[in-house]
Amino acid sequence: MVEQTSKNLSWNGAIYGYKATSSSLGGLETSFNVFVPSSSSSSSKKFPVLYYLAGLTCNADTGAQKGGFLRDAAEQGIALVFPDTSPRGAKVEGEDESWDFGTGAGFYLNATNSKWEKHYNMDKFITQELPKLLQETGLPLDTKTASIFGHSMGGHGAVTLYLLYPELYKSSSAFAPILNPTQCAWGKKAFSGPNGNDGYLANGIEEGKSRDATELVAGLKEGRKLDLLIDYGTGDQFYKDGQLLPENFEAAIKKAGQSNVTVRSQEGFDHSYWFIQSFGPEHIKFHAKYLKA
Amino acid sequence: MVEQTSKNLSWNGAIYGYKATSSSLGGLETSFNVFVPSSSSSSSKKFPVLYYLAGLTCNADTGAQKGGFLRDAAEQGIALVFPDTSPRGAKVEGEDESWDFGTGAGFYLNATNSKWEKHYNMDKFITQELPKLLQETGLPLDTKTASIFGHSMGGHGAVTLYLLYPELYKSSSAFAPILNPTQCAWGKKAFSGPNGNDGYLANGIEEGKSRDATELVAGLKEGRKLDLLIDYGTGDQFYKDGQLLPENFEAAIKKAGQSNVTVRSQEGFDHSYWFIQSFGPEHIKFHAKYLKA
Repeated sequence: MVEQTSKNLSWNGAIYGYKATSSSLGGLETSFNVFVPSSSSSSSKKFPVLYYLAGLTCNADTGAQKGGFLRDAAEQGIALVFPDTSPRGAKVEGEDESWDFGTGAGFYLNATNSKWEKHYNMDKFITQELPKLLQETGLPLDTKTASIFGHSMGGHGAVTLYLLYPELYKSSSAFAPILNPTQCAWGKKAFSGPNGNDGYLANGIEEGKSRDATELVAGLKEGRKLDLLIDYGTGDQFYKDGQLLPENFEAAIKKAGQSNVTVRSQEGFDHSYWFIQSFGPEHIKFHAKYLKA
Repeated sequence: MVEQTSKNLSWNGAIYGYKATSSSLGGLETSFNVFVPSSSSSSSKKFPVLYYLAGLTCNADTGAQKGGFLRDAAEQGIALVFPDTSPRGAKVEGEDESWDFGTGAGFYLNATNSKWEKHYNMDKFITQELPKLLQETGLPLDTKTASIFGHSMGGHGAVTLYLLYPELYKSSSAFAPILNPTQCAWGKKAFSGPNGNDGYLANGIEEGKSRDATELVAGLKEGRKLDLLIDYGTGDQFYKDGQLLPENFEAAIKKAGQSNVTVRSQEGFDHSYWFIQSFGPEHIKFHAKYLKA
């Protein structure tokens, strides 16, 4: 059951807040926001959907409020969907002890470690449950025509879900994504936990390869052509600290002979929404090519 | 002494955070943000300045993060300045008891009531002290070429400061401004206080007429031509509750024979930043005409 919690007119449409009890997240309540380039739910035109996945510490409001995406989505006739970054209130031990693990840090996977597997299934929520909830809203959404983008941990989510589920998304893009999580501190902590055996995945970092964009590109199915755009800033402290590792991903892409994958380094830009908003219009335009084809 | 606290590249320029000890605000520390359409402070080109005044409960970050103004300012070559909405930490009795009075609710005036007059002088801060602080930053700003806009209480601030100081601002605009504060609950509380004698102004509501846009228009100097753009939404609960009173202002404008003042009602839009961002591009374009003339 989905419940509308807010509606605000914006641009040529409206942004709606919803909450729902999620079975994928173990019966917890979750919230999400939807922008539709029309304020009438009875419109016969249905809009393609672009999912935005936010980063560590963020929630369903962050991208909606700070990304500046609505203007271009309105212009292009694309709906935007902003889910949360993790379950909330699962009460798993250690869930609220650090900003980069647990609450606000779901990593867009399905947990296999018994400690986390009841609640930490943001993959299943976003790829399976959320499209059904969107149908329930009655909004004019064409959920069968969808693309996905995101920032940092959400960029990792957007790229890995795109690689894992070719039937669900036409294109993907990311701002400063975590592209090789089995090789960086954030990813290692997510997969194998703060103590090495209490992460989201039962088999830790080794199992994490199935959630690692660079690893997934190396194992792509013959003949699959990727449509991907990635931007990161050279002034990004997390890039400098080796959390993003775009070079590893680029090497894998080159080896795989993927010609429609663009990885751009943006001189001096950092990890913030000031960076994201500056390149958002180009990302929306990129997705419009595929969503409106 | 102004101190830079942050710098983030955004669009074709950068947004800077500053803090400074303010004499107008009784020696308290205040913060403000500045967007410059260039990330080089040694540029020989100086940019005209558009001040944005935020509303009740907001601070120096609200308009910068949620307004979506940077994109158009970057395109037009206009700098943006975002001051705070009140002094912080003045420790005046009752200062933190309500969201619409005291902290976060400075009303952009100079207090005359002894209780508040040491600290609550946002008018003086914005019109006199802030331009000097901006010079101190060393950023390429042409502070002599300025306009001013704002939202709600900040719309009241933008319009009244424009009316009071014709030499400082070339144009003014506002989203859902409080236009006749001596006639609405927010304004009455600000001017005469929660108990009728403890407001910002020694002579209460009567003195408030000197800070009331509708009253000021009626007393305009012969020959002064106003350049003003105002938008409000018909779905705005505060408009419906009689806090904004645009009709009273329109009547005064008509009586004064001002032909370049536009007051537009926007069907269904509310009081939020979703409304503001939708009309921001038109406001920036409006100011560009005067700032780049």
